[in-house]
Amino acid sequence: MQVARKLSWTLPDWMFEEFELGLPRATAEQRMALAIQLARRNIETGGGPFGAVIFEVGTGRVIGPGVNLVVSQGCSLLHAEMVAIAFAQATLGTFSLASGKYELVTSSEPCVQCLGALFWSGVERLTCGAPVADAERVGFDEGPRAPDWKEQLSARGISVEAPLLVSEARAVLDEYARRGGVVYNGRTTWTATPAT
Amino acid sequence: MQVARKLSWTLPDWMFEEFELGLPRATAEQRMALAIQLARRNIETGGGPFGAVIFEVGTGRVIGPGVNLVVSQGCSLLHAEMVAIAFAQATLGTFSLASGKYELVTSSEPCVQCLGALFWSGVERLTCGAPVADAERVGFDEGPRAPDWKEQLSARGISVEAPLLVSEARAVLDEYARRGGVVYNGRTTWTATPAT
Repeated sequence: MQVARKLSWTLPDWMFEEFELGLPRATAEQRMALAIQLARRNIETGGGPFGAVIFEVGTGRVIGPGVNLVVSQGCSLLHAEMVAIAFAQATLGTFSLASGKYELVTSSEPCVQCLGALFWSGVERLTCGAPVADAERVGFDEGPRAPDWKEQLSARGISVEAPLLVSEARAVLDEYARRGGVVYNGRTTWTATPAT
Repeated sequence: MQVARKLSWTLPDWMFEEFELGLPRATAEQRMALAIQLARRNIETGGGPFGAVIFEVGTGRVIGPGVNLVVSQGCSLLHAEMVAIAFAQATLGTFSLASGKYELVTSSEPCVQCLGALFWSGVERLTCGAPVADAERVGFDEGPRAPDWKEQLSARGISVEAPLLVSEARAVLDEYARRGGVVYNGRTTWTATPAT
């Protein structure tokens, strides 16, 4: 067996064909709506029920769009927020989004991995849709997070805004469970739990 | 500005040319020694002072080698542990290392991002070299980690072994600081702090 020396990740074509990514989103609600729409579209292709976007704060331009690509691209790193960050940095050609004014908008509160990634990325603002309890209700385990993570981000200069479009974001998680979507935790894989 | 649609990451050639990665490492010390050697070699090329390897537990075969590639490849995700996990999964063609028996051996205790990534990856065991205090002393901020992260990993079936080769691992961090290496936190960039 040969150890892999190179790997490549590709955003789905439908992202570019269906979502007018070149169009700025002026309001916070429009930005969250895009993240949720990406999440919803992703489950139609068999992907995980999460979407996230890095926007330029002042203009609302999309710098890095993301959806969960864990299963389709065979890598547990590829949560929506991770994809958004990696592609935003590829778009800008830098490892640090602190070089400008950027924000992460995500359809669900970040898990421990994505919380860590956004901390390192240089974004200055985080806005979430569904709270972590909704992802957990469906069956995801968001991991060993610090209970005071919002305060810890804030202490490092990253603001956490009030949740937006929570019921729309929650509806995507519920739809994923209704379809019997896979919960692709690295250690075990099972079917999502529909709301009772 | 066009949003990036594809990105690729490549392991450094020197990893394959200088480290006999096809050779199994039978003992825990040999495995940690490789992670530390990779970290040391990486700083000679201007990379961050961290190395990590995914091994097959039973055989000691290298499945995914990693070093910090944040600056050279322009992506804040590319901590050594993240690279090791992503390339191990690429080697095996699966998003879940729980399909076999794999361990992560890292030259320094994981930051919050890497802690999250290993939780999702499916590895069953973690062994660290230098404690987080050493990385922090040099100037790295390991982020909003849960204080009981070891217990939280253990509760999820991932064992955290006793630290190994701590002084060898620490020496790489000190060497990085001595050279005036960059601390590439996404939000700010500054020069590492040499030991006093």
